[in-house]
Amino acid sequence: MAKKNDLDEYRVPAFDESGKSKFALAGIDPSSKPFTTGSKDTDRERLAEIGAALDAQQERLHAQRVQRVLLVLQGMDTSGKDGTIRAVFHEVDPLGLRIVPFKAPTLTELAHDFLWRVHSQAPAAGELTIFNRSHYEDVLVPVVLGSMDKDARLRRYRHIRDFELMLAQNGTTIIKCMLHISKDEQRERLQARIDDPTKHWKFDVSDLDARKLWDKYQDAYEEALAATSTDYAPWYVIPADSKTHRNVMVGELLLRAFESLKLEFPPAKESLKGVIVE
Amino acid sequence: MAKKNDLDEYRVPAFDESGKSKFALAGIDPSSKPFTTGSKDTDRERLAEIGAALDAQQERLHAQRVQRVLLVLQGMDTSGKDGTIRAVFHEVDPLGLRIVPFKAPTLTELAHDFLWRVHSQAPAAGELTIFNRSHYEDVLVPVVLGSMDKDARLRRYRHIRDFELMLAQNGTTIIKCMLHISKDEQRERLQARIDDPTKHWKFDVSDLDARKLWDKYQDAYEEALAATSTDYAPWYVIPADSKTHRNVMVGELLLRAFESLKLEFPPAKESLKGVIVE
Repeated sequence: MAKKNDLDEYRVPAFDESGKSKFALAGIDPSSKPFTTGSKDTDRERLAEIGAALDAQQERLHAQRVQRVLLVLQGMDTSGKDGTIRAVFHEVDPLGLRIVPFKAPTLTELAHDFLWRVHSQAPAAGELTIFNRSHYEDVLVPVVLGSMDKDARLRRYRHIRDFELMLAQNGTTIIKCMLHISKDEQRERLQARIDDPTKHWKFDVSDLDARKLWDKYQDAYEEALAATSTDYAPWYVIPADSKTHRNVMVGELLLRAFESLKLEFPPAKESLKGVIVE
Repeated sequence: MAKKNDLDEYRVPAFDESGKSKFALAGIDPSSKPFTTGSKDTDRERLAEIGAALDAQQERLHAQRVQRVLLVLQGMDTSGKDGTIRAVFHEVDPLGLRIVPFKAPTLTELAHDFLWRVHSQAPAAGELTIFNRSHYEDVLVPVVLGSMDKDARLRRYRHIRDFELMLAQNGTTIIKCMLHISKDEQRERLQARIDDPTKHWKFDVSDLDARKLWDKYQDAYEEALAATSTDYAPWYVIPADSKTHRNVMVGELLLRAFESLKLEFPPAKESLKGVIVE
């Protein structure tokens, strides 16, 4: 099994105002499996262990009602955001998990700043919240489509850093994962959906337009990740061509984040000692 | 196994403006197990089947994005609302499930009508939503504490019926379950929490105050259920002294509700036929 420390090799270096980013998304191979335990079968066993451990951790988080945990999932179409949530959080008590899907903004949401709808969904004390897409769409889509210039982009990166700092300083542990697949892998996954008529509901012909802009999206991701990875809200790049590897790695990351909180159940209440219910 | 039709024996008769209610909560034995499959072990097996079937149904609901499903859970303290959610929905994709806990209202919520905070949480198209407590708290607590007179109560029952009719006529399937435990069973469960210091965080001494008002709560439940059970949003009383029985019965009810929707995956899209991804 991979050493725990290795996770940090997939962490995007923290943003540094003074220097150029040393981060290259293309430097990480989407087909690599650094956190596999050896085979798909053993990966599934490890994932079951992680799931049970996350469930136990989440119960403490909930009991304590002080800390908050936020997982942000981003990635190209078919990169496996839904599949990751299903696989990694399958064992977690549904009572303790809130999943927030961010779709194209509504007219009301567009009438506000881009963090408005996000802020209202931030995790409360004791909550584990997963953002399925997020405010990062707002520094990817308009950039790729050319509707936002560089100054506006740099302002948004800063707004994001400031916003996440505020969340972190109010007790939120933030983990951000970019599910990194190759262009070939996406072709296979899209083709598989097209070839299976029962999966057409997941698909629209316009989905192929984003694929045509693949390189621009990779560039936009690279810049956004470099500009918004911080000590308090780091980005991790998850090699995700292998689904089992992707699940194990996201699970390991989140479990490590939970363990670092050293959560304990609240102490017994003196006022309840010896009470007999009538 | 119990016949499916039997579920209707636990359905509170639909409200009828003209007549007196024929419903007596005390007529249902909390310790009975009409839907058990025979033993705890076989009940757990049946529950696993139900969970897998609910997961499959929920995926269709989500794919179709037309219907909505709302499960309302009510019951006295320790009746097992949390436990039911954990057990019955364990297999359901967390992406397709939204759980809304209603706590004591905030000042902002109190500044609105009692349905205001509830309406904003109603399920969207394709969603399965569970209310863990609900607007029914607002026709129970104030009634028991004597802060709401009969006219105000009758108005609220009507407001609830009208609200739920509107949800139903907009494609929401509503199932309401009252988890029905005996006073003795509650004593045992409360005492067990007190005797286990690691469970004190779930407990406050003031929780015992509600128990002292047990009979008043049973009366308030009986009246509220009779006044708000309708063809479009029926109440079911779930004998819940046995946790495995409670889980199986709630699961069977919800599964039957899903099956009655006859959900199918959306048809294949002609526009995708023969498309080759480049």
